[in-house]
Amino acid sequence: MVDITHKNNTLRIATAQATVMVSKQETIEAIQNGTVPKGNVFEMSRAAGLLAVKKTPDILPDCHPLPIEYTGITYRIEALAIHIECTIKTIYKTGVEVEAMHGASVVALNLYDMLKPIDKGIEIHHIKLLHKKGGKSDHKKPTS
Amino acid sequence: MVDITHKNNTLRIATAQATVMVSKQETIEAIQNGTVPKGNVFEMSRAAGLLAVKKTPDILPDCHPLPIEYTGITYRIEALAIHIECTIKTIYKTGVEVEAMHGASVVALNLYDMLKPIDKGIEIHHIKLLHKKGGKSDHKKPTS
Amino acid sequence: MVDITHKNNTLRIATAQATVMVSKQETIEAIQNGTVPKGNVFEMSRAAGLLAVKKTPDILPDCHPLPIEYTGITYRIEALAIHIECTIKTIYKTGVEVEAMHGASVVALNLYDMLKPIDKGIEIHHIKLLHKKGGKSDHKKPTS
Amino acid sequence: MVDITHKNNTLRIATAQATVMVSKQETIEAIQNGTVPKGNVFEMSRAAGLLAVKKTPDILPDCHPLPIEYTGITYRIEALAIHIECTIKTIYKTGVEVEAMHGASVVALNLYDMLKPIDKGIEIHHIKLLHKKGGKSDHKKPTS
Amino acid sequence: MVDITHKNNTLRIATAQATVMVSKQETIEAIQNGTVPKGNVFEMSRAAGLLAVKKTPDILPDCHPLPIEYTGITYRIEALAIHIECTIKTIYKTGVEVEAMHGASVVALNLYDMLKPIDKGIEIHHIKLLHKKGGKSDHKKPTS
Amino acid sequence: MVDITHKNNTLRIATAQATVMVSKQETIEAIQNGTVPKGNVFEMSRAAGLLAVKKTPDILPDCHPLPIEYTGITYRIEALAIHIECTIKTIYKTGVEVEAMHGASVVALNLYDMLKPIDKGIEIHHIKLLHKKGGKSDHKKPTS
Repeated sequence: MVDITHKNNTLRIATAQATVMVSKQETIEAIQNGTVPKGNVFEMSRAAGLLAVKKTPDILPDCHPLPIEYTGITYRIEALAIHIECTIKTIYKTGVEVEAMHGASVVALNLYDMLKPIDKGIEIHHIKLLHKKGGKSDHKKPTS
Repeated sequence: MVDITHKNNTLRIATAQATVMVSKQETIEAIQNGTVPKGNVFEMSRAAGLLAVKKTPDILPDCHPLPIEYTGITYRIEALAIHIECTIKTIYKTGVEVEAMHGASVVALNLYDMLKPIDKGIEIHHIKLLHKKGGKSDHKKPTS
Repeated sequence: MVDITHKNNTLRIATAQATVMVSKQETIEAIQNGTVPKGNVFEMSRAAGLLAVKKTPDILPDCHPLPIEYTGITYRIEALAIHIECTIKTIYKTGVEVEAMHGASVVALNLYDMLKPIDKGIEIHHIKLLHKKGGKSDHKKPTS
Repeated sequence: MVDITHKNNTLRIATAQATVMVSKQETIEAIQNGTVPKGNVFEMSRAAGLLAVKKTPDILPDCHPLPIEYTGITYRIEALAIHIECTIKTIYKTGVEVEAMHGASVVALNLYDMLKPIDKGIEIHHIKLLHKKGGKSDHKKPTS
Repeated sequence: MVDITHKNNTLRIATAQATVMVSKQETIEAIQNGTVPKGNVFEMSRAAGLLAVKKTPDILPDCHPLPIEYTGITYRIEALAIHIECTIKTIYKTGVEVEAMHGASVVALNLYDMLKPIDKGIEIHHIKLLHKKGGKSDHKKPTS
Repeated sequence: MVDITHKNNTLRIATAQATVMVSKQETIEAIQNGTVPKGNVFEMSRAAGLLAVKKTPDILPDCHPLPIEYTGITYRIEALAIHIECTIKTIYKTGVEVEAMHGASVVALNLYDMLKPIDKGIEIHHIKLLHKKGGKSDHKKPTS
């Protein structure tokens, strides 16, 4: 684990995206109409993601524990794609990009878990960092 | 959570794949030559994946806890892609596909975490189920 | 921890209840109208409860780990009271009453956590076992 | 999760109470005489509570992780009631009331778990905040 | 992780020992007289050990999750040595020796943590398997 | 749990040692030649140790959660002894010795777990603090 004892606290923000591809329009409609048998897909997956973000250092050996001061999770449907964005903020010595990536990936995985009884062809595509602020290297990429 | 009290134990096997795309050949070489500053990327990520598979019901609200009886994690490098396969076996009432998906995604995330100091352009692509055996619907897809 | 190696697997069902008392009608309306600033109170708390049930042996030293085969969480509003019922099923050597009590109490606690910005007078009342089935002593009490 | 990046650290103290109602005097005597078959009820439950307080952000999706700088757990027996008080301190941007409520509720639940072999009529009553200090709204209520 | 899908359930018992060496007689007396400032050393450490045993597969990558059906923790004081024995039972496909070793080591570590304010010279000695039963190779060693 | 709200942040460093004694030279050779059937013993155990250090307050009731800012794990082979050193750094109000002891003990336990299929006589010896810096009492002991 990298030594960060000499680093200063600064505001760090990171946004990661994950995309869940469903295989048919009926799956999107079931989500929108609230008829997925396992329940409210977006709210349950948000709860799973909020908890998972805080468990990131429990999952990744080299990841420093840090005070998560904000997590936001949003959904955007585009044809058969569900785009998940997970934004994290902290004031700390290291960035939160891996926490944002972890949050996005767990939200995606929970969508998969709740939707698989009604759609056998779901895949998770493109988990990636969208924005990062604070620390020595800012980073910005356009949404694909 | 779905009621499974009436179901029978059968052997269940699932294999999921995640693909990590690095942005340059030097990253692949650093892994192969053991010169990644954060350490042995494949072994550390295997350990993270083995532990994460067992935490799947801790992460996903609807996922049943079950006895993981085998986990295998393999790597295959193809140009700038690192393909991760995670295979799980259990003898239980429900399948292990979401456990395999979770294992593959955490291995991918740990590769991202260990490689990001040397490669800012890493993305995780295509987390998906490859094979599934046992239970009422067997499932097989060719590797992309 | 009690030795259960000599016991047999039987179907065990337990239902526990927790009651959250809010201090004003506006709180109930905010839940029903979906205007609580922290989000969807019942769905987020259900997710928290589903996960917590599975963590019971992680929280209580003497509690045996066991295969949770069903968890159901329901809400019933009665004036300023929100009654939560948590039902658990397993086929195992010990009962699931403490898991049901834990699930109900965490759902109640999450209601408290999400509602406290809009209601400072919330209390949790009467966490208790309602029904229990399987094992040597069946148990049934009327809902208060 | 609420954004707290703009808030300042201040000393925060919260005390929550939970009350466990046993159904007969013999249960109280078994605790006091150290004859409960599952062991030392108050010490084991204190340990469970100390650990649970630190797991609060792991259990509640919206709860910020924060540095627990003090946890105290005390017991007071009054006829068939066992009153548990859990006091938490931190110097941080958000309060610790939900951590105190969680600590008190887990201590109560562990009393229930250890006592249920000798008393089938135990209930948990009145988990509530007693005192809160620090942050914008101090809060004090008399013990019931 | 080794594949155990083909193995049969049998009764497995393992006992591990850890020895904590304190540096002065006053430490032993403080434990026996209940005057250790951090509280009841043996009961708190028993609770920590009971919980830790159940977390073994969460800590060790290759360890199979299994149903812990009994855990017993005992203490024996001999001059400046505190001998801890941790016995585990399960009916499962793999043994419980590493769970017993983990339980004994966490009890020892918690003794260290609670006693270090009054004794700076504490060490943990000889964590080892004492007995093992079930599976293909029974194993028995005399207590040192 | 001791109240630390009045204490100041200072740099704290602690190094603990654990020693694993194997029973034959072939075990050491299997590690060095990479022929242990369960895989890369030192890398897997390092990952387990890095994760375990962060879980210390989850395992020990009285241990304060704190920001782990560095963890280093090294191995030294001497005849049949494998010496593990675990060094932790933080800038916080309490020391990190018990975190270092926990890290060293989990690395040792994972060596035991991975090596037991090829060596039935492994023991863990002498888990102890080697160095400690920061806070009111610095502490240094020669390696045995």
